[in-house]
Amino acid sequence: MAHFFDARATLVNDAIDGLLAASGGRLARLDGDPGIRVVLRAETDPGRVAVISGGGSGHEPAHAGFVGPGLLSAAVCGDVFASPSVDAVLAGILAVSGPAGCLLVIKNYAGDRLNFGLAAERARALGHRVETVIVSDDIALAEARQPRGIAGTLFVHKVAGHTAEAGAPLEVVAALAHRAAAAKSLGIAVSTCTIPGSPRSERLAEGQAELGLGIHGEPGAERIPLPPVSELARMMAERLSDAVAGADRLALLVNNLGSTSALEMQALTRAVLATGLGKRVRLLLGPAPLMTALDMHGASLSVLPLDDELEAALLAPVPVPAWPAAMRVVPPRLRPLPKGLAGEVFTPSHEAVTAARIAAVARKLIAAEDSLNALDAKVGDGDAGTTFAGAARAVQADFDRLPQADPAALCRALAERIGRAVGGSSGVLGSIFFAATAAGLADGAAWPEALAKGVARVQAYGGASLGDRTLLDALIPAVKALRDGGLAAAAAAARAGAEATARMDRAGAGRSSYLAAGDLAGVRDPGAAGVAEAFAALAGSDNRGEHGWAPQTP
Amino acid sequence: MAHFFDARATLVNDAIDGLLAASGGRLARLDGDPGIRVVLRAETDPGRVAVISGGGSGHEPAHAGFVGPGLLSAAVCGDVFASPSVDAVLAGILAVSGPAGCLLVIKNYAGDRLNFGLAAERARALGHRVETVIVSDDIALAEARQPRGIAGTLFVHKVAGHTAEAGAPLEVVAALAHRAAAAKSLGIAVSTCTIPGSPRSERLAEGQAELGLGIHGEPGAERIPLPPVSELARMMAERLSDAVAGADRLALLVNNLGSTSALEMQALTRAVLATGLGKRVRLLLGPAPLMTALDMHGASLSVLPLDDELEAALLAPVPVPAWPAAMRVVPPRLRPLPKGLAGEVFTPSHEAVTAARIAAVARKLIAAEDSLNALDAKVGDGDAGTTFAGAARAVQADFDRLPQADPAALCRALAERIGRAVGGSSGVLGSIFFAATAAGLADGAAWPEALAKGVARVQAYGGASLGDRTLLDALIPAVKALRDGGLAAAAAAARAGAEATARMDRAGAGRSSYLAAGDLAGVRDPGAAGVAEAFAALAGSDNRGEHGWAPQTP
Repeated sequence: MAHFFDARATLVNDAIDGLLAASGGRLARLDGDPGIRVVLRAETDPGRVAVISGGGSGHEPAHAGFVGPGLLSAAVCGDVFASPSVDAVLAGILAVSGPAGCLLVIKNYAGDRLNFGLAAERARALGHRVETVIVSDDIALAEARQPRGIAGTLFVHKVAGHTAEAGAPLEVVAALAHRAAAAKSLGIAVSTCTIPGSPRSERLAEGQAELGLGIHGEPGAERIPLPPVSELARMMAERLSDAVAGADRLALLVNNLGSTSALEMQALTRAVLATGLGKRVRLLLGPAPLMTALDMHGASLSVLPLDDELEAALLAPVPVPAWPAAMRVVPPRLRPLPKGLAGEVFTPSHEAVTAARIAAVARKLIAAEDSLNALDAKVGDGDAGTTFAGAARAVQADFDRLPQADPAALCRALAERIGRAVGGSSGVLGSIFFAATAAGLADGAAWPEALAKGVARVQAYGGASLGDRTLLDALIPAVKALRDGGLAAAAAAARAGAEATARMDRAGAGRSSYLAAGDLAGVRDPGAAGVAEAFAALAGSDNRGEHGWAPQTP
Repeated sequence: MAHFFDARATLVNDAIDGLLAASGGRLARLDGDPGIRVVLRAETDPGRVAVISGGGSGHEPAHAGFVGPGLLSAAVCGDVFASPSVDAVLAGILAVSGPAGCLLVIKNYAGDRLNFGLAAERARALGHRVETVIVSDDIALAEARQPRGIAGTLFVHKVAGHTAEAGAPLEVVAALAHRAAAAKSLGIAVSTCTIPGSPRSERLAEGQAELGLGIHGEPGAERIPLPPVSELARMMAERLSDAVAGADRLALLVNNLGSTSALEMQALTRAVLATGLGKRVRLLLGPAPLMTALDMHGASLSVLPLDDELEAALLAPVPVPAWPAAMRVVPPRLRPLPKGLAGEVFTPSHEAVTAARIAAVARKLIAAEDSLNALDAKVGDGDAGTTFAGAARAVQADFDRLPQADPAALCRALAERIGRAVGGSSGVLGSIFFAATAAGLADGAAWPEALAKGVARVQAYGGASLGDRTLLDALIPAVKALRDGGLAAAAAAARAGAEATARMDRAGAGRSSYLAAGDLAGVRDPGAAGVAEAFAALAGSDNRGEHGWAPQTP
């Protein structure tokens, strides 16, 4: 069992009930015989021609997902990949067909032809007006007497549904449906599909693809090594192009056969539109899973030559969630990159105290590189010292270009330098710290409040808190102490905070969180230790308390 | 290479171009740096709060597929499963954020938190009003300090997008977004996902499932044998129920993680709604692929406690095709089976000539059983004689209950008996033949015209034509001859037609189509031979030409 289901025998019935539940009361089903699975609109209009389709299940959203105004009046669902019984089709006809009659849209498979055909005869014998259209859009086998009906069938659903909704008589609905049945389709797949309850079959080796296959996991017409999608698109487009030669105005339906990722489907769509065939496409439907083969990894392309009537029918919106609105193909809309990305150009300035402090911190962190690395070797990956020192060297290198006299600009410059010089999350966190501090300063906050803002952002985006054995265990108390006690108090608080980390037996964030308590015991967190070094340097260089780093009274 | 793409490096960019092409001009993208992948609405409104989300790609339609009025203003797309760069996020902010400011919706992963966080700081430094909401809806790991952000994020997109569209100020949009971020989610999968260009990894054995996994193919919290979907739904619902205890009014989002078939997703939806949690669900979103993990075979459930404001925001329709309209959960709408299915009740009647003819044909076909089987043994599966004889015996058995005096009713009765007695396509085709003939007779046609109608339907639904080495090669000339020459001529034509099949070296339909010319040479088609036997019997019993089977002149 590798599928989400209860039992093979009830899967389709259960799925239909799920579909109904998700329809908000839009859909109904016939009740009374579990072998008769007919999904219909909750509101039917016997005055209009009914459009009925169906077939084996496993192709969802086809067909039940396309029941709704302007599309199907009813869908008759067989078991997985098995034609519905004659009785089931007849039940569908009798349930929705009124005096205006009905059109059966039949995919060209022997079982569907026969069972829908006999049901049509029986309905006629009961006095109903029934027309049929058999869709055989697959061009995979050039010599096929009976080409299969695949995703091109959806054009017929839409055109017939739209025409019926508009109140046209049965002959007109059928005539338009026959025109829409001129659609041509071609499929490609790199995997087969798996039927719930059946063993997996992997016919295709990795890198192999089957061109021209149907919607039941049957083998494709041709096995090829899968080319890049642009080449594949050209190959498929060429064949389809021959099949609709002369038509200069096409609708293209791009169908996901099941498990192809949206990224691939979108890349395929782009590639097809870039081909010669693509240039003739006026309307695009999809990419979307429309006529699937369970979980097949594959796609199909369907094209339909358009005239005004078909185009209008395809474009008309329908309140059916699974139906892909037809979109006019327009040139891609591109917008230039916004200004402001380039980064700020800072005006260098000199300020003696600030310069001294920056220089002291940089020297201290560079000097501490080995000892911090040694700490980190015990509880992390051994590069914490190099990280701090790298940031310090980057700042040293730019020292004379820093806007030292403008605290907010200085912090923005530090954010930018550190972000660039230090890789990974450390660099981003450092950058966040200084950028948020800068924003605080720019808003008029004093240093302690501004730094507190920086700390808060590091917590918010870094996800660590006090006690998590990170640099915050030094930074949070230091910034707090700064406000009330100045730099000396901040340095003392940072040192105490760093030392406290040695007694924390569990890291709540960062790389140390993977270590056991025993490995952490007695070792200071290297990040916290680095912060302590920085504050020690700031305090040591603090010979001008009046310059803004001194204790403040509110 | 087992995916549809050109190159790993350009896949996401190509996919975005495909998305744009399929949007009918609804979407635009930033152009100028392939590393900056930002999808935005073609029309933006700087007077409204912008809602921006994004993250690694591979989760389509999230996030770019949700850009549109009432949802996202922009999506910032990283490479597959990789957070977008700070510059990319900043570009997104600067491109769509006006005086009303913007809200960043961030899934709780370290990379996204940091890069979106720093971009927010940089945007603030440039004077933009930026709020953030970090979504951590995953309940898989009960003790997780930083629960992941998964599909529940979509509630936040919708609620924030709706509120912004309504013109609410940034604080209000952010406050509602935070309320929507109370969503709780849980995932299940039976396969991992495959990144285009990377080798397949199959961590899970057949029948195994992982409960509580994220959206990047990372291992789940728990490995279990996959239970039937009803049991699975109960298990997941129980955990989610605990996470939203006390809330009696929920929205449920059912998310396809990638390659789960629609049948399974619908069965899962039904099963979840049947649980205790399901009874508390007022609004249902999905099932649909919404926040996928490439081609992962899995699903996730997300629940959100509702209040009036959240409910209204979720219900508001948006013109964004990938967005699943929220549906109110209503009782399933069931319709009784239509009348007319039961089959016609025929009034027995006796008519001597008809009785004689039926009896003669039945006797003849039963007598020919072995010889027809012998023919079929050479070119088919050896049961053609038994098929004809079976039909004949069924008619014999019901002889006295047939409406012999009412030709149309008689043909309908024969259609019904043959359909019931003969299995497979032969029975359906026989049934179609007599049902269509009946309809012709009921419309007032004479026998030859009515039979011609029957033949035409057999051709249409059976898919064979004259010359295909089937029973039509006897039936078509016989019915034609009947009109001009009566039963004797019809019998002669049928015999000649059957004999002609022995000279056809290729069968165009039926089981013989699999045989080579040499195997067919000199052997009459057993179906055509059976038809010839039937017409011979009719002609032999034709002592009352005036009874309608005689030559007709127009």
